[in-house]
Amino acid sequence: MATATRSVHEVCVAAKAASHLLARAERAVKDASLRDLADRLEASAGEILDANAADVEAGREEGLTEALIDRLTLTEARVAEMAKGVREIAELEDPVGEIAEDWTLPNGLRVQKQRAPLGVVGIVYEARPNVTIDAAALCLKSGNAVVLRGSSAAETSNGVLAALVGASLAQAGLPEASVSLLSGGGREQLGELATQEGLVDLIIPRGGEGLKMALKAVAKVPVMYAAAGNCHVYVHEDADLEMAARIAYNAKVQRPGVCNAAETLLVHESVAAELLPGLLDELRSAGVELVGDERVREHPGAAPVGEATEEDWVTEYHGLKMAVGVVDSLEQAIEHVNRHGTGHSDAIVTASDEAAEEFTDSVDSAAVYVNASTRFTDGYEFGMGAEIGNSTQKLHARGPIGLRELTSTKYVVRGSGQIRE
Amino acid sequence: MATATRSVHEVCVAAKAASHLLARAERAVKDASLRDLADRLEASAGEILDANAADVEAGREEGLTEALIDRLTLTEARVAEMAKGVREIAELEDPVGEIAEDWTLPNGLRVQKQRAPLGVVGIVYEARPNVTIDAAALCLKSGNAVVLRGSSAAETSNGVLAALVGASLAQAGLPEASVSLLSGGGREQLGELATQEGLVDLIIPRGGEGLKMALKAVAKVPVMYAAAGNCHVYVHEDADLEMAARIAYNAKVQRPGVCNAAETLLVHESVAAELLPGLLDELRSAGVELVGDERVREHPGAAPVGEATEEDWVTEYHGLKMAVGVVDSLEQAIEHVNRHGTGHSDAIVTASDEAAEEFTDSVDSAAVYVNASTRFTDGYEFGMGAEIGNSTQKLHARGPIGLRELTSTKYVVRGSGQIRE
Repeated sequence: MATATRSVHEVCVAAKAASHLLARAERAVKDASLRDLADRLEASAGEILDANAADVEAGREEGLTEALIDRLTLTEARVAEMAKGVREIAELEDPVGEIAEDWTLPNGLRVQKQRAPLGVVGIVYEARPNVTIDAAALCLKSGNAVVLRGSSAAETSNGVLAALVGASLAQAGLPEASVSLLSGGGREQLGELATQEGLVDLIIPRGGEGLKMALKAVAKVPVMYAAAGNCHVYVHEDADLEMAARIAYNAKVQRPGVCNAAETLLVHESVAAELLPGLLDELRSAGVELVGDERVREHPGAAPVGEATEEDWVTEYHGLKMAVGVVDSLEQAIEHVNRHGTGHSDAIVTASDEAAEEFTDSVDSAAVYVNASTRFTDGYEFGMGAEIGNSTQKLHARGPIGLRELTSTKYVVRGSGQIRE
Repeated sequence: MATATRSVHEVCVAAKAASHLLARAERAVKDASLRDLADRLEASAGEILDANAADVEAGREEGLTEALIDRLTLTEARVAEMAKGVREIAELEDPVGEIAEDWTLPNGLRVQKQRAPLGVVGIVYEARPNVTIDAAALCLKSGNAVVLRGSSAAETSNGVLAALVGASLAQAGLPEASVSLLSGGGREQLGELATQEGLVDLIIPRGGEGLKMALKAVAKVPVMYAAAGNCHVYVHEDADLEMAARIAYNAKVQRPGVCNAAETLLVHESVAAELLPGLLDELRSAGVELVGDERVREHPGAAPVGEATEEDWVTEYHGLKMAVGVVDSLEQAIEHVNRHGTGHSDAIVTASDEAAEEFTDSVDSAAVYVNASTRFTDGYEFGMGAEIGNSTQKLHARGPIGLRELTSTKYVVRGSGQIRE
C-alpha cells in the first residue's frame, strides 16, 4: 500500500504499472492476500479502534454532526464484519478470464469475449473507514489497482487500515502500488484524480450528492454514479391486498434510510377503499409521516394524511415519510414512476402476468419487481456476493456493482493464419 | 421522422416520449418498418441521387476537399447497399427482452437480467449521408429513439433520407419522433444536444478527431468514443514465418485507411534475419513506406528503411506507411504495444499456446489476435450483423458496437410476496 507523499499523478502512474501485473495475478495469490488481510484486521482490532477513536475525537472537536460521527465510528463488531466481508470476497469466483461469450466464425476464427480488469479504479468516499477495506478487497479480487481517496475526517483510521492492506499485498508478493491511499488533499486533489485520463479507467464515488456534484463538475475520466433512490410500490387492481400491505410496509419501514427503500405508494382506485385505511394505520403506527394526493386525503378512513406537493413525488426522504397516490390505471402508474422516479427500484403487486409484464417492460429502472419488496436491490441479496454501490446509469453496469461490473471485456480471437480477403 | 424547426430540447423531449413506446414495440412491427424503408430507398433512388447531387455541387462550390466530396457522394450502388444493409438489420435477432442472465435465489425470488433499450441515442456524424440510414435502422431495431445530427454539407441528402424513414415509421404505426434529424445548427447545436441530461441517454460520434474533441469539451451526457487504431502485429520467435508475412502484409495493405489496419510490425530478434528481407520487399512492392528502429535499419537486407521517430510509434497512418521494430522478448513486445497502442486491435503470430496466452492476457486492447490479421475487428466480420462503430473504451462496450451494445439491461425480479427480514 503506497501512501502518498507523491503527487496524484505519480500515484496513478504507479497504480497503472501495478495494474498490468495484477491483471495476470493468479486467483490463489489474490485470495491468499485477502485472507491474510482478514487475519490482520482481527489481530489489529485494538490498533484500528485506537486510531479510529482519535479520528472520532477530532471530529467531535471540529463539530461534525452526529450522523457523520456515526458513520466514522468503528466498533469491534464493525471490524469483525470487515474481516468477514474480506473472507467472503476471497470465496467468490474470480471474474478475470471468465468467458462471457464464445463462438466460431465460418472462416474458422474462434472469438471469445473474455472478462478483463478495467485497470485502475478510483474510489472517492466520505467518512466511513470500512470503505477502505471493502473497496481494496473488491478491486484486488477483480484484478484492478485502486486509488482510494478518503475523507480527511477518517485519515488516521484509513492510514492504519491502508498499512494492513499493504502488508497483505507484500505477504502475497503482489505489487505495493496495487492499492494506494490519497488523503488530506481537498477538492483540488479530487480534481487531479478525476483528470488522470489514460491512467485512471473509472472512478466510483461513494457518498452524498455534494460529492457527486463536485466530481461531475471536474471529471474527465469515466465515472459510475449511483443516483438517489426514489422507489415506488404500485398496487394493481387485482393484487392480493394482504401481500400488497406487507410489501409496501416492508419497502418503507424495514430500513428507511437506504436507497432501495420506497418513498411512494401508488394504489389503483378500485382497491384503495379496501387497502388504504388499514395499511396507512400500520404505517403511521411505525412512525411514518404520510402525505397524499387529493384522492387519498379525501378517502374515508385515510386521515390524517398531509398534502403531497410536487416536491414530495420526486423526493428521496431517507426516513419515515411516504407519499401516497391513487391512480386510475396501470398506464397512469407507469407514467408516474417514469416521470418522478430515479430509475432505481420499483415494484408492482399484481396477480396478472400481463400487467406484470407491461410494468416490467415499461418502467425504466435498474430493478423492477413483481410481488416483492424493493429492498432486495443489493449485491448480497442478489447473490452477487458483494457490491461497491448501486448504479442507476444505463451504460456498463445498471444495478448492483459487484465483481463482474468492475471488469471490462476484450475479444480474444484465435486463428490459424486467417486474413481478410 | 421529425425534422427540426423546433429547439433541440423540444426534439429530445419528443424523442424521449417516443422511446417509451418504441421500447415496447414488437419485433415484427420494427422489422416491417425496416423492410418498408429498404423498399422506399430503392424506389426513391432517383430522388436521393438528385438531392445528393445538389449537396455535392454546393460542396464543390464551397471548396470541400476531394476526400470529403467522396464521402458525401452517393451512387446507385451505395443506395442499393443502404437498402441491403437495412434488410439485413431486419433479419437480425431483436436484442430487446433478451435474457442475459437468469437465476433463482434461496428465498424463491427469480432474478432475470433482461436487455432493454437505452432510450434516446444521439448520433453525430460528418459528411456520409448513409449514416442517416444505418443509424436510424440500428437504433430502431434496438428499440431506441434516435436524434441524428448530420453535417450541413449533407443537409439536402439527409432531408430526403429522413423523409423516407419518417414514411416507413408512419407506415408501421411507430411514433414519428422515433427518428429525428437536426441540421444546420453548427457547434452550438452540438453543445445543446450533448447537454440534454435526463433526455439523451448516449451520444455516439462518427467522424474525425475534431468532432470527438468538440464533443468531449461540452458533453454532459454519456458519450461512447471510438478511438483511433494504432494496431500492431508481433511476430514471436517460434512463428510460422510464411503465416507471419501473410498476416503482416494483410493487416497493413488490404485496406490501409481503416482503424483495424496495422501501423506497426514488431519482430522477435531471433527471426528478424529470416523474416524481414522478404517481407519488407513485399511491403515496399505494395507501395508501403517503411520506417524502422536502429536494429531494423542496420539489418542486412532490410534497406531502404527510414528512421522511425517516437512520433511514428504512436501514429495511425491511415495509409501505406509502416513502422518496424525488433524486440528481444515477448515481454518487450507487450510493453511496446501497451505503451504506444490505442487499445484497438493487436496480433501475435506464434506457435506457442503459452506465448499466445501471455500476449492475450497482457495486451490491454479491445481485440487481441493469435495467428490472424487485425483486420477482422468489425461487427460484420465478428458475426454481429452490423455495427455503428468500434469502441476502444473499457466501459459498456469494447470492440464493435452492434445491436446489443445499443441496449442496457434491467433486473426483473419476480416473487410471491417476499420481503426483507
